[in-house]
Amino acid sequence: MSQKPNILTPSGFPEFTPAQERVAQDWLNVIRDVFEKYGFMPITTPLVEREDNLVAKGGNPKEIYVLKRLLDEDGDRSHSGNAVRFDHTVPLALYVARHLSEISFPFRRYVIGPVMRGERAQKGRYRQFDQCDIDVIGSEKLSFLNDAQMPVIIAEIFEQLNIGDFIVRINNRKILKGLLALVGIAEIDAKKYLDIVDDLEKIGEKKVSDLLGKEGLSSDAIAKILAFCELKGDPDSILQTLEKDYLDVELLQEGVTELRQVIEGVRALGLAEDRFKIDLSIARGLDYYTGTVFETHLVGYESLGSICSGGRYEDLAQIFTGKKLPGVGISMGFTRLLHQLFDAGILKAEKSSPSDILVIATEPELLPEALKLASELRSAGNKVENYVEVKKLAKQFDYANKLGIGTCVVIGPKEMGKGTVIVKNMETGEQAEVERKDIRLQ
Amino acid sequence: MSQKPNILTPSGFPEFTPAQERVAQDWLNVIRDVFEKYGFMPITTPLVEREDNLVAKGGNPKEIYVLKRLLDEDGDRSHSGNAVRFDHTVPLALYVARHLSEISFPFRRYVIGPVMRGERAQKGRYRQFDQCDIDVIGSEKLSFLNDAQMPVIIAEIFEQLNIGDFIVRINNRKILKGLLALVGIAEIDAKKYLDIVDDLEKIGEKKVSDLLGKEGLSSDAIAKILAFCELKGDPDSILQTLEKDYLDVELLQEGVTELRQVIEGVRALGLAEDRFKIDLSIARGLDYYTGTVFETHLVGYESLGSICSGGRYEDLAQIFTGKKLPGVGISMGFTRLLHQLFDAGILKAEKSSPSDILVIATEPELLPEALKLASELRSAGNKVENYVEVKKLAKQFDYANKLGIGTCVVIGPKEMGKGTVIVKNMETGEQAEVERKDIRLQ
Repeated sequence: MSQKPNILTPSGFPEFTPAQERVAQDWLNVIRDVFEKYGFMPITTPLVEREDNLVAKGGNPKEIYVLKRLLDEDGDRSHSGNAVRFDHTVPLALYVARHLSEISFPFRRYVIGPVMRGERAQKGRYRQFDQCDIDVIGSEKLSFLNDAQMPVIIAEIFEQLNIGDFIVRINNRKILKGLLALVGIAEIDAKKYLDIVDDLEKIGEKKVSDLLGKEGLSSDAIAKILAFCELKGDPDSILQTLEKDYLDVELLQEGVTELRQVIEGVRALGLAEDRFKIDLSIARGLDYYTGTVFETHLVGYESLGSICSGGRYEDLAQIFTGKKLPGVGISMGFTRLLHQLFDAGILKAEKSSPSDILVIATEPELLPEALKLASELRSAGNKVENYVEVKKLAKQFDYANKLGIGTCVVIGPKEMGKGTVIVKNMETGEQAEVERKDIRLQ
Repeated sequence: MSQKPNILTPSGFPEFTPAQERVAQDWLNVIRDVFEKYGFMPITTPLVEREDNLVAKGGNPKEIYVLKRLLDEDGDRSHSGNAVRFDHTVPLALYVARHLSEISFPFRRYVIGPVMRGERAQKGRYRQFDQCDIDVIGSEKLSFLNDAQMPVIIAEIFEQLNIGDFIVRINNRKILKGLLALVGIAEIDAKKYLDIVDDLEKIGEKKVSDLLGKEGLSSDAIAKILAFCELKGDPDSILQTLEKDYLDVELLQEGVTELRQVIEGVRALGLAEDRFKIDLSIARGLDYYTGTVFETHLVGYESLGSICSGGRYEDLAQIFTGKKLPGVGISMGFTRLLHQLFDAGILKAEKSSPSDILVIATEPELLPEALKLASELRSAGNKVENYVEVKKLAKQFDYANKLGIGTCVVIGPKEMGKGTVIVKNMETGEQAEVERKDIRLQ
C-alpha cells in the first residue's frame, strides 16, 4: 500500500460526527428506558445467522450479505453458509425457536442494534443501520391489549425525545381487506391493492386512483375505496360508521372489533386523544401484518414518512418452531431517522462531550491537585474531565468550547493557598471565585 | 427447505439467555456511565471498513471476514472490498483520519460494540464478540496523567459491578526492554522475549526459563530477567530499587520516570493502594504498546487471565493521517468475560425481566382498570408490566416467578369497589391489601 489509502467509510456505511453521536446516545438511553419501563426485556442475537434461515423467512438474496474469510485456504467449512441479519424479526423467530423451553409467554423483548442490507447505495438508504424493535409474542393467542401498548410506548418515547408534535395512526388490515372483498377483490389478490392504498399519503389520491384503475378496478370500486380511506373524524365516530355501514362484511367487522379493543386499551393507558387517530388508509407494505397496523408521523414533516411503525402478525416462527406464535411489534429505523432529522434541522448536534465540567490547572505542578479536585466533583455526581496537557489557558478554554463543555473549574497557585477555585461559565463567560468545598454545580 | 431447518446459531456466534442478557445490559449501563463520568465521548464506527485498511493495520487475512452478497449478478462493484472490523483500534484510527479537522485533541472516545474474527471455533473463542474500549489520543504529545486515569476507571467499573476483589497491575514496557538490552538483547529482537515473559503468570517460571533458554539466552541472563520480574513490594520501593540498581540503563530509567508519573496520578485520583500494583513482568502481547501497560486480575481467579487490559502506543494512525498521534487506552473483552464469569459461577443470571411489578386483573373486565393502574405505577417511577392474557391467577403468578418479577399487584372486583389492591411479594409470598393511592413500592 504505497499509494495513499482510501480512508472513507464504505458506501452505505455511514457514521455520525461526535456531536451527532452524542445525540444518538441520548436517544438510545431514552428508548431503552421506555422499553424497560414497560417491562420489555433486552435480547441481543448474533449479527450472523445461517443463510438458509434468512432466505427461508423472506430475505432477498441480492441484499443478504454472507461472510467469507479474506483468506480461507485451510478448508475450514464452519465459516461457510453464514449471513448477516437484515432485520430483527427473523433473528427473533430463531431465538424463540432456540429457547422455546426457557421462554415464558407472552414473551416481551426489545432489541437495539445494527442490521445490514446490500441495497443500491443512494441518499437515505444505508447498508448498515440500527433498528430499535419491540415485540410481544404469544403462544397460540395474544390479547389485543398488547397492541394497545404500542402507540403508548411510541408516544412516550417521542415525547421524551421532544422533537415536536406527532401522531400515531392506527388501523387494522382486516378492515381494508374486508372492503376490498366488498368491491370484488379476492383476498389472495389483496396485497397488491393494499400496497397501492398504502402510498395514498405519499403519492396522492389521483395517482392511487390511476394505479388502481390500471389494475383493472372499476371507477365505482375505486371511488368506494377512496371514499372509505377518507373516512375521517374521532375514533368513536369512525368505528360507529364502520359498524353501521358495513354491517355484513364479516372480515371488516372482525377488524373493527379488534380495533375497538385497541382504542379502548390506548385510552385506558392514558394516551392523550390528540396523540393518536384511526387512519383507514394505512396498510404497511410488509405482507406479514395481519391485523393492527401503526404508523407515526411528525406533524408538519409528513414527507419524512413514518418514523415508527409496526403491527400484528399471526405467525412469527412456525417454520422454525412448528408452533403458532402470534405477535405484535413496532420498529424504529434509528439511523435513518436520525440522519433525516439532522438533515431537516429538526435535531441539532451541538455538544460532543458528555462532560459537565473541565478541570484546568494553571501550572503543571498543580495537575495532581486538579486530578483530586476532579475526583471530588465526580463524587458529587458530575461528569468531569481533566485537561492534563501543558497548554496555554486560552487553548484549554477553547477545547471546552469546542466540545460544548459548559463549565471550567480552574485551580491556580493563588486560589490553592486560599482553598478556592475559579468557576467559569463557558456560555456567559462569567467567572467567580468559589470556596472549593462549596462547588456544587447545576 | 423441506427438511427441518437448523436453527442453531452459527458456530462461534454465541447468544445470552434472557437472564444473562439482563446482567449484560446492567453491566453495559455501568460501563457506559463510568466512561462518561470521566468525559469520554461515544463514537460508533461502522461494522464494515475497506479490507485494504484492515489488512494494512495488521489484520490477519485468515481471520478477516469480508462481505459478499448471496446473489451479486448485477455487477454492482460497490459491494466489493469491504470487511468486518476485527477490533476497535483500526476503526478509531480511520475515524480520526476521517474527522481530523473536526476533532479537538486530546480526543477521548469510548466505544462499545461487536467485532468479528474468523478464528477456529473452540470454547471461549468467539467469532463475534463485544468489546468496550476507551482511548485518549493526543496530537504529537500526550501527558502520562492520561495513562493514570485508566486504572482508576477500571477500578470504578469493577467496584460498581461488584464481582469481588481485583487488582490492576501496571508496568512500563521501556523498563522491560531496558533490562533486555542490559542482558544483551537488541531492541529489534525484544518482542519475542517480551512475549515469553508476558506468559510468566500463565505458564510459570520454569517454562519461561526454558523458552528463554531455547531462544539462546545464557542462564545468567535468564536469572537476571526472572529476578527482575520477581521484584515485589509497594510501588515506591520498586521504583526506588529500579532507580538505584539500574541507574545507567537509559531506556529503563525513561520507563521508570513515566511509571512514576502514572503512579502519582493514580494516587492523586484517589485509587486505594490495594487496588493497584507495579508488576514488572507484564508486557502485553500486542506489539504496538510502547510504554505503560495495564492488566486487571480477579483475586482468586487469576487463571481467567486479565479481565481488562491496555496501554500506551506511540502511533495510532500515521499511515492514515501522516501525523504522529500517540494514545493510551484500555479494552474489555465483554462477551468473553461475561461467559467466563457465568461459567465460573461468579456471576449469576436469575432475573430476566426488567419489571419491578406485574399488574394482574382477576377478571377480564377489569383489564382496562389494570392498564390504568400500571400507568399510575409507571408515573411513580416503577418498571411495570401488565398481564393481559386471560389465564388463571396461578399461571400469572407463575409467569412473574419465572421472570423474576418481585411484586405482583392484583386488582379484583371486591378491591375495585373499595379503592384497594392486593400487593403480593413474590419472594416471601406475603400479600397485603393496600389503598390504591398509597402504593409506593421499594
